[in-house]
Amino acid sequence: MNFDRGGATDISSGDSQTLASLYQLVSEDIAALREFLHGEFASTEPFVNELLEHLSRFQGKQVRPACLFLSGRCFGEIGNDHIKCAAVVELIHTATLVHDDLLDAAQIRRRVETIHSRYGDRAAILLGDIIYARGFVISTEVENAARLLANCTMEICIGEMMQVGNAGNLQLLEEQYFEIIHRKTAILYGLSCRLGAMLAGATEDQAAAMEQFGNQLGVAFQIIDDSLDVFGDQETVGKSLGTDLANGKMTLPLIRLRDGLDVEQRESLLKLLEGHREMDRTEFHHEVVRWLDEFEILDEVRERAQQVVANALKSLHVAAPRCEARDQFEQLARFVIERER
Amino acid sequence: MNFDRGGATDISSGDSQTLASLYQLVSEDIAALREFLHGEFASTEPFVNELLEHLSRFQGKQVRPACLFLSGRCFGEIGNDHIKCAAVVELIHTATLVHDDLLDAAQIRRRVETIHSRYGDRAAILLGDIIYARGFVISTEVENAARLLANCTMEICIGEMMQVGNAGNLQLLEEQYFEIIHRKTAILYGLSCRLGAMLAGATEDQAAAMEQFGNQLGVAFQIIDDSLDVFGDQETVGKSLGTDLANGKMTLPLIRLRDGLDVEQRESLLKLLEGHREMDRTEFHHEVVRWLDEFEILDEVRERAQQVVANALKSLHVAAPRCEARDQFEQLARFVIERER
Repeated sequence: MNFDRGGATDISSGDSQTLASLYQLVSEDIAALREFLHGEFASTEPFVNELLEHLSRFQGKQVRPACLFLSGRCFGEIGNDHIKCAAVVELIHTATLVHDDLLDAAQIRRRVETIHSRYGDRAAILLGDIIYARGFVISTEVENAARLLANCTMEICIGEMMQVGNAGNLQLLEEQYFEIIHRKTAILYGLSCRLGAMLAGATEDQAAAMEQFGNQLGVAFQIIDDSLDVFGDQETVGKSLGTDLANGKMTLPLIRLRDGLDVEQRESLLKLLEGHREMDRTEFHHEVVRWLDEFEILDEVRERAQQVVANALKSLHVAAPRCEARDQFEQLARFVIERER
Repeated sequence: MNFDRGGATDISSGDSQTLASLYQLVSEDIAALREFLHGEFASTEPFVNELLEHLSRFQGKQVRPACLFLSGRCFGEIGNDHIKCAAVVELIHTATLVHDDLLDAAQIRRRVETIHSRYGDRAAILLGDIIYARGFVISTEVENAARLLANCTMEICIGEMMQVGNAGNLQLLEEQYFEIIHRKTAILYGLSCRLGAMLAGATEDQAAAMEQFGNQLGVAFQIIDDSLDVFGDQETVGKSLGTDLANGKMTLPLIRLRDGLDVEQRESLLKLLEGHREMDRTEFHHEVVRWLDEFEILDEVRERAQQVVANALKSLHVAAPRCEARDQFEQLARFVIERER
C-alpha cells in the first residue's frame, strides 16, 4: 500500500494550500504514518496488493490522524504509539469508506473509481474486512488502545446501520440525525483526540475534554459533508454527489427545510421526495436545491455547524493550555466548516 | 442475540444425535458460551437487535467453540477466558458467513433466509462488520489473544479474496486450492485448538501441535463442505447448494476430475464449465454430477479427507495424553468426514 507517494504537499492536491499549512506542525508525523502504513502492507497476496495499490490513490485529507497528532502535541511528544494508533484510525476510516461506497453505490471517490465499481462487490467487502482486521492487529501493540478502537468501530457500524434502517424515512427527527452522525462520524474524531492526549501523558480529565472537542469537531465535519452532498460542486468535491438524496437519506438540510415549512408546503415537499424514483436524478437534485435555496437552508446549516465548532473550541480551551498545536486546532476547526470539498 | 434457546439438544436439531453425544463432555461449556453471547448482545439498537435475532436462528454446529473447549479439557480446566475466546471464534465465523452468503448470493442457510436476502445487502455488510468489531472488543479482555484472533481474521479474509480473485479460473491448481482453504477455513480451527490449550496451561509445544491438529481438521472439514456443495442433498444440508459451481469456484472434486482426464475429455469438461452461464442451473449441476459419478470422484475426495484426518490424529496424539477429551476429538474428527450436512 503506497501511502508514501508525494509527501506532505500531496495532502492538499487540487485544493488550496490551506490544509498543508494547517498540517505544518504535524507534517513529519504524517510522513512517519505513511512510512509505517507502507511497511505494514508491503507483503500481501498479489491480488490484495493490487486492490490496496488502487485504494492508496484515494488518499484523503487524513484529518483524523492529524487530530491525533495535534492532540498529542498539545500535551507532549509524539511517539511510536501515536503513529500506530493514527494508522489504526486511518485504516478504520478507510475500511468504512470502502464499505460505504458499496452501500451508497458511489462510482467515484477523490476522482478515482471506487473499489466496488472497478473490482466488484465481493472484492470491496473483503478488502474492507482485511483493512479492519489489519487495523485491529496493529492496535493490539498499544497498551489500552485496542479495546477503545474496537468499541469505536462497532459504534460506527451501528450508526451506519441506524442510517440504513432509516433509509426512506422522511420523518427522521433532527435529534435522530444527530444521534446517527455522532456514532458514524463524530466518535472516531473524539477517540483520535483522546488517544493523542492519552499517549502524550495528559490527565484523564484532559483526555476526556479533548475527546469532547473531537466529537464536536466530527459533528461539524459531518454536517458540512452532508451539506456538500446537496450543495457542492462535483468537480470541486471530487466524489459522486447527490447520493444521500438518491438513497433516501434525510440529512440536516432536508430536515431543516421540512421542519420550517407550513403544512401545505410540507406536503408538497414530501410528495417530491417520495416520488423521486420516478424522476431523472439530476432534475430531482436541482428541484431539491431550488427548495433549499428559496428557504436559505445553506446559511442555516452553516450557522449550525459554526455553533457546534464554537462549542468544540470551548472544550479545547478547557482541555489544553495555549500552544502552537492548539492554535492549529483552532484553524483546523475553522477549515472544517469553510471547506468546499 | 438469543443464543440461549433450547440448550445442548438444540445443537443437533434435524440431525441424528451424533453431534450431541460428541459434545457431551463440553455441553456445559457450550451452554456457558450461549449465556455469555446472549448477555453481550442484550442492549443494542432495535434494528440491529432484530437482525441479530434473525441471525441467531442460523445457529450452527458450533464446531470451532467445541474444538476450543475440548482442546482446553485435554490439558486442564475451562475458565472464563475460554468462554470469551470461544465467543470471539464463533463471532468471527458468523461474520464471515454473513458476508459470504452475500458474496455467494446464497438464499438460505440452515433452513433460514439469509440476512442479505431478507434485509438487503447494506444490512448484511454492516451486520458482519458489527459482529467482527464486537468480537475484537471481547478479545481484548483475554491476555495475548487479541492479536492472534485479529491476525487470523485477516488471513481468513485474504483466503476469501484469493478465492474471489480466482473465480472462473478453471486452471486453479490443487496446491492453490489447498492454500486457499488453509487460510479461509483451517486456521480458525487451528487457532481454536491453540487457544484452548494455551489457556489451560499447555506448553508451547503442545499448543503448537494442537494448532497443527486443528488446521488439518479444518482442511478435512472444508474438503467435505465443498464436496457436499456438489454431491449433497439440499434438504439434508439445509443451505443453498451448487453455489460453488454457479460462482465458477474450482473445488477439489472438479480439480480432481479435471486432472484425471485425458486431453480430449478435459477439453469437453472445460467447455461445459465455461458455458455454464448459458445453461439452466439445475441442469448444469446434474451434468457436472454425472461427470463426477462416472469417474468416482466422490470416493477419491472422501479418501483424501480421510488421509488428512489420519494426519490430524497423529498431531493430536503427539500433543495430548490420552483422556476423555482426546477420545471425543477423535470421534469428532471422524464425524467431520462422515457427516452429510
